Parts: sequence; structure tokens; C-alpha cells
Amino acid sequence: MKSKSLKNPIFIIIVMSNILCLKGQNFVSVSSPDRAIVLTTLNAENGTFFYNITYKGKSVIEPSILGFSMSKPEIDLNTFEILSVDSSEVDETWKPVWGEVSSIRNHYKELRLFAKDKTGSGIELQITFRVFNEGVGFRYEFPKQSVLNHFIVAEELTQFNLTGDHKTFWIPGDYDSNEYLYHTTRLSEVEALKASNSEPAISVKTPYAANAVQTPLMMKTADGIYINIHEAALVNYPAMNLMIDKRGFILTSHLVPDAVGNKAYLQTPAKTPWRTIIISDKATDILASKMILNLNEPAAIEDVSWIKPQKFVGIWWEMHIGKSTWDKASGKHGATTANTKAYIDFAAKNGFDGVLVEGWNEGWEDWFGNWKEEVFDFVTPYSDYDVEYLSKYAKEKGVKIIMHHETSASVTNYERRMDEAYQFMADHQMNSVKTGYVGKIIPRGEHHDGQWMVNHYVRVAEKAAKYKIMLDAHEPVRPTGLHRTYPNWLACEAARGNEFNAWSAGNPPEHETILPFTRLMGGPMDYTPGIFTIKLNQYDQSKTNQVHTTLCKQLALYVTMYSPLQMAADLIENYEKKPDAFQFIKDVPVDWDDAKYLEAEPGDYLTVARKEKGKDNWFIGAITDENSREVNISLDFLEPGVKYITTIYRDGETADWQTNPESYIIEKKKLTNKSTLKILLAKGGGCAVSIMKE
Amino acid sequence: MKSKSLKNPIFIIIVMSNILCLKGQNFVSVSSPDRAIVLTTLNAENGTFFYNITYKGKSVIEPSILGFSMSKPEIDLNTFEILSVDSSEVDETWKPVWGEVSSIRNHYKELRLFAKDKTGSGIELQITFRVFNEGVGFRYEFPKQSVLNHFIVAEELTQFNLTGDHKTFWIPGDYDSNEYLYHTTRLSEVEALKASNSEPAISVKTPYAANAVQTPLMMKTADGIYINIHEAALVNYPAMNLMIDKRGFILTSHLVPDAVGNKAYLQTPAKTPWRTIIISDKATDILASKMILNLNEPAAIEDVSWIKPQKFVGIWWEMHIGKSTWDKASGKHGATTANTKAYIDFAAKNGFDGVLVEGWNEGWEDWFGNWKEEVFDFVTPYSDYDVEYLSKYAKEKGVKIIMHHETSASVTNYERRMDEAYQFMADHQMNSVKTGYVGKIIPRGEHHDGQWMVNHYVRVAEKAAKYKIMLDAHEPVRPTGLHRTYPNWLACEAARGNEFNAWSAGNPPEHETILPFTRLMGGPMDYTPGIFTIKLNQYDQSKTNQVHTTLCKQLALYVTMYSPLQMAADLIENYEKKPDAFQFIKDVPVDWDDAKYLEAEPGDYLTVARKEKGKDNWFIGAITDENSREVNISLDFLEPGVKYITTIYRDGETADWQTNPESYIIEKKKLTNKSTLKILLAKGGGCAVSIMKE
Repeated sequence: MKSKSLKNPIFIIIVMSNILCLKGQNFVSVSSPDRAIVLTTLNAENGTFFYNITYKGKSVIEPSILGFSMSKPEIDLNTFEILSVDSSEVDETWKPVWGEVSSIRNHYKELRLFAKDKTGSGIELQITFRVFNEGVGFRYEFPKQSVLNHFIVAEELTQFNLTGDHKTFWIPGDYDSNEYLYHTTRLSEVEALKASNSEPAISVKTPYAANAVQTPLMMKTADGIYINIHEAALVNYPAMNLMIDKRGFILTSHLVPDAVGNKAYLQTPAKTPWRTIIISDKATDILASKMILNLNEPAAIEDVSWIKPQKFVGIWWEMHIGKSTWDKASGKHGATTANTKAYIDFAAKNGFDGVLVEGWNEGWEDWFGNWKEEVFDFVTPYSDYDVEYLSKYAKEKGVKIIMHHETSASVTNYERRMDEAYQFMADHQMNSVKTGYVGKIIPRGEHHDGQWMVNHYVRVAEKAAKYKIMLDAHEPVRPTGLHRTYPNWLACEAARGNEFNAWSAGNPPEHETILPFTRLMGGPMDYTPGIFTIKLNQYDQSKTNQVHTTLCKQLALYVTMYSPLQMAADLIENYEKKPDAFQFIKDVPVDWDDAKYLEAEPGDYLTVARKEKGKDNWFIGAITDENSREVNISLDFLEPGVKYITTIYRDGETADWQTNPESYIIEKKKLTNKSTLKILLAKGGGCAVSIMKE
Repeated sequence: MKSKSLKNPIFIIIVMSNILCLKGQNFVSVSSPDRAIVLTTLNAENGTFFYNITYKGKSVIEPSILGFSMSKPEIDLNTFEILSVDSSEVDETWKPVWGEVSSIRNHYKELRLFAKDKTGSGIELQITFRVFNEGVGFRYEFPKQSVLNHFIVAEELTQFNLTGDHKTFWIPGDYDSNEYLYHTTRLSEVEALKASNSEPAISVKTPYAANAVQTPLMMKTADGIYINIHEAALVNYPAMNLMIDKRGFILTSHLVPDAVGNKAYLQTPAKTPWRTIIISDKATDILASKMILNLNEPAAIEDVSWIKPQKFVGIWWEMHIGKSTWDKASGKHGATTANTKAYIDFAAKNGFDGVLVEGWNEGWEDWFGNWKEEVFDFVTPYSDYDVEYLSKYAKEKGVKIIMHHETSASVTNYERRMDEAYQFMADHQMNSVKTGYVGKIIPRGEHHDGQWMVNHYVRVAEKAAKYKIMLDAHEPVRPTGLHRTYPNWLACEAARGNEFNAWSAGNPPEHETILPFTRLMGGPMDYTPGIFTIKLNQYDQSKTNQVHTTLCKQLALYVTMYSPLQMAADLIENYEKKPDAFQFIKDVPVDWDDAKYLEAEPGDYLTVARKEKGKDNWFIGAITDENSREVNISLDFLEPGVKYITTIYRDGETADWQTNPESYIIEKKKLTNKSTLKILLAKGGGCAVSIMKE
């Protein structure tokens, strides 16, 4: 693999020293192309370096310091002399291999400050800001230099100095888990340890401070400005958490440590990930932003012809609801030859690309909870799973079996076996793998979100690409747009997925209205929607668990939760009972030409329309939280003068996520771009609409 | 690979409950087959379990406690109820693939105590003692049981309660290095931290306590009893150091911790390594003991036909003396095609099996000191090293190139690449690899001697065997007899080798008289003897370094330092200057039928005669410390009535390791088994003798 040269660039670099606003020698400013966002830096007399950001004339980020603490060499890099300043403008358009849109404009003004440590070490670094219409990205770069080669980061000292006690959608800072429920409070009300303690269903978590939160952090100011803080291109560096100063409303970076307490081992030339601040007075603009993708490197994979978005079914939900098990010793093993064959048949009949089979391989009798290193070998099927036969059978049926590599977080073991495991996949016609990292990491002392594991996830994506294998990583660090660089890395879990509904307090109705503003800012999620049998007491009267949505909201999620990898997660028999509703899952695509975010409010609702890749079909998803809601959708984005057959899957009149979640109504209408849809979403409800040219 | 069944056993198991000496119900005793050693266990009223050992009626180990501290489950396992006792006797003979002797008798009486935790946890364990004529081995075994599955060892509480303030040959307790000078003091005088601090030449060391020492620990009592404490079959467990109670003369086990401070992760059924105590009133018996080998498992490799002891030369010493470098950027790269070709020619001409080439691969410009993970890839030669040509050339000449895999202690990196690296070797006709672990271990926080690394070394031996590759590990944990189980694991460094003489204070003349009693108790060492140009000022007048022996002592080391892998470490030109002395290195074999330890005193001298494997040739090595010494060797071990041509390589009349180290005399005599050799060893000197049937 090597860096792919731009093949279709509209690429303009303009040296624009003239647009710099130099107020005295210590201030430097640059505005977004549309001039709504203005970034200003200040190098104070004592060397402290600040940046601040305004949006439409209002302060969004107050002067905030930048810097580093290093343990080798032992130095605090937080006073600088600015040697020079460069600026440029880029306006290019590129085409993702797959995505929400078929073409992405990357338009920003860049400010690059060449700085030197003021304490006399001679260390030089560059601080680079890119100001987009949607927000600001900035990173630190350490060029190759005689006074700095290898170095160890003790902490990054990046601040985000906010203007007030914003409404915040947060999960606790944690080194190992991002599978938390979201909390909505003021910044000053964040109680991370308390929140973590109240989550018994998360088996491995490492919270560490009461005022620590994770990114993507979504906030809303009192005057209606939405702010999203995250990072882009997290490579060879630990994930960034944020510590909240609850009085000053200052967020400060906190990097995930390694086994000995260091944060990052770097060698010049080195650069940090981009720190991203997306800003808008429209919530829908936050969702539509492609800034994080734009800050990532182009595809590192030359031949991408084998990479395909996918819909799949599989042997999975049945384990979560207790119908079967991953392990064989229980006597109710799910991944049998017969069961897999039934799923292959079902997938072939209904046009699914893949069948995920979890629990196919030996080791599940003793896989979790003991920091055991040698668990799975990734090539030894259980005796009741005929991998040779099933590979051939799937091929005959035109379906791909999706491999499952649960590592049990024993990553040293997985890394030793990856080549053999991927060769085994190639030998058995499998080209997609779902990885899992459930447990405490081995190397012991490392964390899911530390530098070593960040490098591991990238290694997996790279090695998988060598074998032309697509990747869906569960329990990894949360994404930061690396699917641009590794388009075979289709999706991640890295948040609280639908399965929590099966065996825990579950995900409240607002959950799926927050995820797009938080976790999904970094990249697609394998959320596993499509559950039709909502209340689990239908399997077992003693169960009180349920999915916290209506059936129609489960359909809507295929549109509201963008992913090139979507599971129809429920059991065959449940889909067979409701073929009319299932039709939407069969119809909905996983690759798109365009997205129209029609309305959104984090924690409350979201309506989006998407145009199928290469076709004139549109699909709409609308969801609400625990409140019912009327959605009014103007179809003015449709091609004028064309008649569309529109199928509306909406909540039944008495639908309610708690009392009557499976009630739905399906209507067909002929509509045009002049039409408006007015649809009532039930409490915890949603609607899904397919719009196809007549 | 699987366990090899015994093919040539004289195997007797005798149930011998009648030989148990039961004094009341709490004492159990068992004696060695020759009755010189008596082991007695005592289960005290309060549950404390003791063992003690006498030798020829004298106490050697006073009552010493056994036990464990576990962190999961959190319990101190140090009071027991003895449920039952089993005993047996084994007397078998087995043939090593290679070794000091062609046949080894394994004769011991075993005592197995079935114990139950007295605190009520229900945990059961077995304590197994094997009493040989040469000493005692014991281990803990945790059978599979419902109350104990996975567990974590916080510390092992094994004591060796000594009878006095013995003279001790020790190196400091350390988690990462065993390349220390030996100190000879009373137990009460051990100052481990001070000793460690005085060793600037050891680049990565982790001493941790003033009273900690490593094993093999050699001691001598005031009344002339030699005691050696070590371990056998170190697998899936950390190395054991010993903490000295300087008043009570009690040694207590201290296991090397992992990155988070735990000692070992075990799962029932589990067993610890054997703790070994070798005892004799003759120092030579300590050296001749095969007890540690006998306590290891038989060969795990079915086909051993490809495993061959080897003599080799190589591109190595020239880097240590500064003539060339491992890296290419210096402009004096050692591993060039031309230089390697010269060594291949020299090896072929002089009957050497292999040529070691260090510095052949890219990465040496930035390989050490920065905890860098991605250093070497093990498959990319420097541009001036033509691996394809040299592979073919070596094959034509009937010589094997020995691969060098310096991992820079980045073991995660090595493990990811091992398969590719060994395949590269196979593709280039190489079947031996010298590994290296110089640096701080990655996974960061792990140690060279911890459980994770112990498992790594074994994984390397196992994977190498799959590729029919022989192994020589440098900077690993010190050996514990595993070369019986993995006969492709020919040798280790794991102690202070000859190269320290090139660039540090070096190894004093006594060093090689101590190593056989310490480091070599666990297995062969790649000590790299054979240096002929003793004083390095011959290369560069500013150098004061020298090898701290005479030339003849360098020859003697091929016999006194048993190893199936012996390097002739000096430069071609140095051997070509002294072809008469070099003849001994050409003649001396590396595999043997028999060994006669004729005289020895740790720290002072050692004389041993060895019979060449499958031939009637004998070789004698005799060495002394800083004192000159007359050696009287009776040749009564020779075949009666046969005339032997004897070549004696002895120190010149004025030879002295400091003032005249390269002076030597070579004499040829015809001798018989009635002859006696009387040879003067110079200060720091030695002699080597070859005895070949006329």
C-alpha cells in the first residue's frame, strides 16, 4: 500500500499573507472561507500561546493555551517564540470509496505557526490550524531536528476555554470503554465517576476522574450555538479525553496512558491527531460536516475495487436474548452448521450480502474475565460447525460468511495469529471480519484507547487490506475519520450498541438521537438495528428487557445511523412474521450519493433524507426520543416533475415504545417534489420512508 | 510437535510406602537412592508446612516454609492440612539429542503430598519432592478443581533456610539483566544495589532490593558442602530471584513481576517450575549433576534429525572492538557481501559449520535506547549485503549462514514478524538463528525475566522448531534445562559473555571458573571464546581493554564451558597468524559421549576431560583464576593399552594474563591411560589438550 495520489482534485493553494489580520506582532487571525468563523492566535509576552475562536462575531472558544509536558526529554513545552507564520487556502473536491455523499469538498484556510520553545531547549514545533466553514482543526507537528529525535509525551496541554456552562452530552472519561449511556447536563454538573459506577453492564471499564469526559463531546450554548469537540486522524497517539474545570468551563486534554503511565512515544518528524471543533447555529450542520474526514489522509489502499458496503444478517441476536450461546458446552450452541445454513438461505433469498457467525470457533467455554492470553486461535471451528461445507454452500448461494474474531482483548495473541487467521479467511472465501476486544487488554497494563492499541487497530486495518479483507471493529477506540484512509475499515462499534437492550437497563429512547452528534462524528457505527420483536418477554416471560424504541424507529435507524455496514439483527423467524415491514430493510441501501439533514436536535429528534448511490431512490429516516412528535417533511429535494412511489413505514396510531412498540402502518403514495409528508412519531418512535422513481 | 514417548527406558516405579519414615503423623521423610540426602517434611499443628534437608547426616536446609500469596482469589496459601502422601521411585536412562554425555540416568525417589488450604477455601495443591543422589527438586502443583480455576500469584513463599553465613557466588537480583559480574562474599555481605550501581556497562538493568540475588546461586558452607539453588523447567511462570535474610540466613523466593505488579497468571491444572537444591561435598559433583535436565520434560520435537551442534565464526567481534559497525551509516559497515564471503571461505576451509552475520539488516541506525517499537523487520538486508548471492555461495561452500534477529527487546514487533522472518530464513537456506533482546521490553512494563517473556522465549523455540530452525537466544532469562524439551534451543547467552572484555571493565580471570557453577547449571552458554589477540591496544593504542585470560585459557574454554554451540570469535586474520594454536579450535568437537570433572573450585579453577561423541578422542580443558596453578591430570580414564597422540596447548613460561597473555607452547606426546599430565597454568591461564587414538 502507498499513498494514493489525488486523481480528481480541484486543488487550489493560495498564498494569502494578505488576508492575515496582524494586530501588532503577537496576534494572527484567519477566518473561514465564508468568514463566519475567525480563529485568532496570541503569543503573549511571557511566551504563552493562546488561540480563540469566534462564530458570527460571538466568542465560542475564549483564549486557550496550547502546549505539552514531556517526560523524555523532561521539559514543559508551553512557552514559545513564534519564528514565522505561513498561510494558505485549499479548495478541493474528492470522492470517497463509499459514504454519505459521493463527493466531498475540502475547503479551508490554513495557518501554520513555526514556534520555538522559549525555555532554551531549542525544540521547534509547528502549530497548524485549518479553518473551515464548519469549524476548526488544529494539530502539533514536530519536524525532524537535531535537538529532538525520540521523545515521550507525559501530557498534552491543550485547552478549550468555553464561554459558559453549556448543555453537554457526555459519557465518563475512561481508558477502556466507550459503551456508556449518554448524560445530558451542564458542564458543571458532570459526575463521571458516579455515572461510571451506575453502569454495571459494562464489564471492563477504567474511569479515572470525576470531571473527565470523552470525545466526541457535544455541547450547546445558551444562545443556541452547537459545538462539537473531537479529534481527527488518531494514529500513533493515545485517544484524548477532556478534563472539565467546572468553574472556568475550561476543557483540558487528558491522554490515555500506557502500562507505565506514559502517554505517547514519538519520533520526529511527528504530528498529533487534529483537535477538532465543529461549530454551527444549526444542529443539522454539525451532522452534515465532513471536516473530520477532510482532516484525514486520502486512501492508503491503491486498489479499492473489492471494498463494498454491506447489509448482513447473522447468528448473533439469538445469543444476546439467551436463545443460544457462543460456547458449545452449554448444549445450546448457536453457530451450528444447520443454523448457519438457514441464515445463508435467508440471506440469499432476501438479497443480503453477508451472514455473520459468532461462536463458530473453539474457546468460548473460557474466554472472558481472567486476563487469559491464549484463548482463541481463530482457525479452529467447533466440531458442529462445518466450515468447509458452509464456505462452499455460501459461495453457491452468492452469500459471504462474515468472520468473527473475538480477541478477548488478548491482543498479543491476536497479533501473533493474524496472518494465519486472515489466510484461513481467504481460503474459505471470507472477505469481511468483525473483530472484538472484550476484556482487559493484553499487553497487560495497556488500555483500549492508549497509543499501543491505537496502533494495533490501524495495523489490523492495514493487514486486513493486504488480504483484501473488510473490517468491522467492536470495542476499539472511537473512530476519528480513519475510514477515509482505510476504506476497508467499514465500521466500528465503539459505543453502546443495540445489544445493551437485550440484557441491561438498555438504551433509552433518546440514545439514538445523541449518537449521531457524538460517536458517529468520527465514523460509521455497527449499531445492529432492525429488531422487530421488541419486548423480550415474548421469548421468556420472566424477562423485562426490551428494545427502547418502536418497530418503525428500528427501521428508521437504517437511515438516521449512517453506516456502510448494516445488520438486520433480529432472528429469521421474526422477520418472516412481518414481511411487509421487513421490505424496508431489504430495500434500504448502504451507500449513498447525498444526504439532507432536514431537522435535528441532540437528545430529541433527527430527520434525514438520503439518496441511494447511483440511483434516483431516496430514503428518509425520522426518529424521536421519549416524546411523540409530528414530522413535516418537504420533498423539495426530489427531482422536479417526476412521480415517485413512496412507501411510508410509520408508527401505528396507538404505538408507544413502552406499551405498544410493534404497532406499525405501511402506506404507499405517489408523490412529487412539491409534496410534503406529515407523519406522527410515537413516543420512542420513528418512521422510515422509501421514495422510488415510478 | 508432541511429547515423545520414551524409547529406551530402564524405567522402574516402585511404590515404597514402607521406606517412609513417619515420626508421628506430621513428619514424612524420604532419602536419596544412596541415602546421603534425607528430605523431611513437617506439617505443624497450626498448618505451617516445612521441609528440611540433611546431607550425610548434616543439616543443609533447616526447616523452611512453603506457600503462596495469591491476589486472585485473594488468599495466603500457607497453612495446610495434609490429606495424603504418595511415594515412588524412578530409575530410567535416556539419551539426549546432544550433550555432555550420551546417556543420562534419572534416578530419584519421589514424595508427593496432597495438601488442602487450612483457612477453609477448599483449595487443594500437591507438593512434590524428588530426591536424587545429587540433590532435591520440588514443585507445587495445582490440580484442576472446582474451587480454583484461574488464579493470580502475588508471590511465592518458598524458603531455603540455610545453616550459616555461607560463602556465596552471586549477582544482584534484577528483573532484566543477568550480565553482571559475580561477587564472592558471605551471604550477610551481599549488597545487590551497590553491586548493580557499579556496573555502568549494563545498559538495561532493573535491580530492586539490596538483599536480592539471582539463581543459580552457588554457595559453600564452612564445613565444605557445596550447595546450588536454581530452578528447572521454567515455563509459564516468572523467574525466581531470592531475597536474603542476612541474620537468619533464610532465602525467600521473589518472582519477577509483570507490568501491573502481578507475578503469574495460572489456570488449573498448573504447576510451578521445580525449585532445585544440588548438594555435594565435591565441587565436581555439582558440575556433573544432570538433576536439572532430569527434572525437565522429554523432547517435545518428534523429528530431531535436523538438530546439530555447531562451531561457527562470524562478523561479530570486529564490531565489539570497533573495527566495524552493525549500522551502515557509520561508513564502516561490517556485514558487507565481501566480508561475509571471506568468512564463508574461512569457515569452509577450516571445517566450521556456520558463519554468523550481525548487522546484515536495516534498522541499526536507530535501534537502541528509545523504547522504539518498530525497529527491525528481519527480512530487509542492507543494500551492501547481497543475501541472495551469499545464500547461494554459502550453499556451494557447504557452510550455513547463521541468521541474527536482534529484536531490540521490542518483542511485540518480533512476534508479529516471526513467521515471515523464519520463512525468509528457510528461503535462504539458513537453519540457525541468534536472537537478541537488548533494551527495555515492549510490551512496556514487562521484564526480560517475567512470565510473559518466559512464555515468549518458549514460543520462539517452538515456532523455530516448526521451521526446523535452531536457536541461540541472547539476553533471555537464564536457562533452566529446557534444552532437554526443546533440543533445537542449543544455547543462550543470559550471562556476562566474552564481549564485555572488549568495551567494559571486562570479566576478571575468575569469571570463567564461576560460570560453570552458576549460569551453566541451567544450560549451555554461547560465551564466544577463542580470542587470540588479547590486548586491544594492538588495534588502537588508546585502548586499555583486554581479554582477562591467556590465549591458552581461551582454548581451554571450549572444553570447560560446555556448549553444543561454540563460536571461534576472533577475526580471520588473528587466527591466520597463529595456525598452530588455531588447530585446537578446529579439532575440538561440540558434542560428547562423556565428561570427567577432574577438579574444580568455584572462583578458583576447573579441569575437565571430555570424550568426543562417537569417537575415541578426548579433550581436556583446565583453567585457573588470577593465580597460577599446577595441574596434575591422571589419564586413567583412557582405554587401557591404547596409545594416544596428545597435543598440549599450554601457557608459555612467562605467560601472564596481564603482562604476556599470548605466549603459548604446543607439545605433542604419545601417552596411555597410565600417563599423568603435569601442566603449569599461568596467572589467568589455562591449557587445552587433545588426545587422539594413534
